[in-house]
Amino acid sequence: MCKLKWDYALYLVTDRNYIGKRYLPDCVAEAIEGGVTLVQLREKTASSREFYALALAVKEVTSRYKVPLIINDRLDIALAVDADGLHLGQDDLPIEIARRYFGEDKVIGISVSNVREALQAEKEGADYLGAGAVFATGTKTDAELVTLGELQRIKEAVSIPVVAIGGIKKHNAPEVLSTGIDGISVVSAILAEEDIAGAARTLRDIVDKVKAGRGK
Amino acid sequence: MCKLKWDYALYLVTDRNYIGKRYLPDCVAEAIEGGVTLVQLREKTASSREFYALALAVKEVTSRYKVPLIINDRLDIALAVDADGLHLGQDDLPIEIARRYFGEDKVIGISVSNVREALQAEKEGADYLGAGAVFATGTKTDAELVTLGELQRIKEAVSIPVVAIGGIKKHNAPEVLSTGIDGISVVSAILAEEDIAGAARTLRDIVDKVKAGRGK
Repeated sequence: MCKLKWDYALYLVTDRNYIGKRYLPDCVAEAIEGGVTLVQLREKTASSREFYALALAVKEVTSRYKVPLIINDRLDIALAVDADGLHLGQDDLPIEIARRYFGEDKVIGISVSNVREALQAEKEGADYLGAGAVFATGTKTDAELVTLGELQRIKEAVSIPVVAIGGIKKHNAPEVLSTGIDGISVVSAILAEEDIAGAARTLRDIVDKVKAGRGK
Repeated sequence: MCKLKWDYALYLVTDRNYIGKRYLPDCVAEAIEGGVTLVQLREKTASSREFYALALAVKEVTSRYKVPLIINDRLDIALAVDADGLHLGQDDLPIEIARRYFGEDKVIGISVSNVREALQAEKEGADYLGAGAVFATGTKTDAELVTLGELQRIKEAVSIPVVAIGGIKKHNAPEVLSTGIDGISVVSAILAEEDIAGAARTLRDIVDKVKAGRGK
């Protein structure tokens, strides 16, 4: 899929800590059925072999649904499974190195927490930004918080898509989306739920409604 | 350096847990001054950015001394710093994936603990084997032990270079080398010593002496 046509509305980031004994590729399929438009595979403790095997299994699901698969941090895993995208944090490889090996037609997203990092990432060739954490989160306990005001300034400062991440749930999603961003990124709000498809559907409805209301 | 000319006599694997407050690139320089012929950078807890920065700094040292630099596990870091080699364990990326992106002119080594794994790795295109652990070790506490008999069978079964690893010190190095292997690989026997160059020199002398005695 041409990267210019990606839909950033509802971006799922995985974390196997939330899914109990459920099989991650199945959870991803349910989330996509519910309305997730992008999937990022994030594995911070798996061995390379395990990450690779899991990425292959998740890619089978995302390919079936024609939803992009983004790998967190690991350029080698992204190359190995021919993922659609790579997401880099500020502690990961520099984007120019990743771009050199991953290619111009692939998507590279960058985590930012302020306007300065956002402008820098856009200048260095990022395809989208993940801005956060907007709220305190159990997934990344060390994440710097980004106010909704800063989130709006980030969105206004760059011309690439911006998704917000960090503690976003259905009750606070509307105010996050009121900043004008392109979509929301969630982990536990979908994966910690028993009804994954239902949780995704609720969030997707909120995003679609807020975005539809913007033109009016 | 043409990979066919590599000298596997004394292979240093890094572990920053052993060096206290000393700066790793300086420790590597001292080890090479003492007689280390290959350096593997192994980082299991660093962020990708930190691993990359450290690899660049260590590469500056190894390049200066014309000693090959091998990256442990991470194909992306090996690509990013244009390392000479990549070392893969049985839990790391499959060698065929690594070879595809790293190239034919680069060295890929594989960890093995028996003849079956050794033959498989050679068949899949490994350039050398790291066999171990030959003795219990504080560095890799979960490593499977390889008897000296099995080490000798591994060496006899393959035509690529074999280095032994795991708990090798100056007192047991001669018996390990008596199996006919090409060199020894150490971590703490060099890096935990106050006199790094001296420790490397002692080990290198043992290797040279045993190998010189083989022809007689």
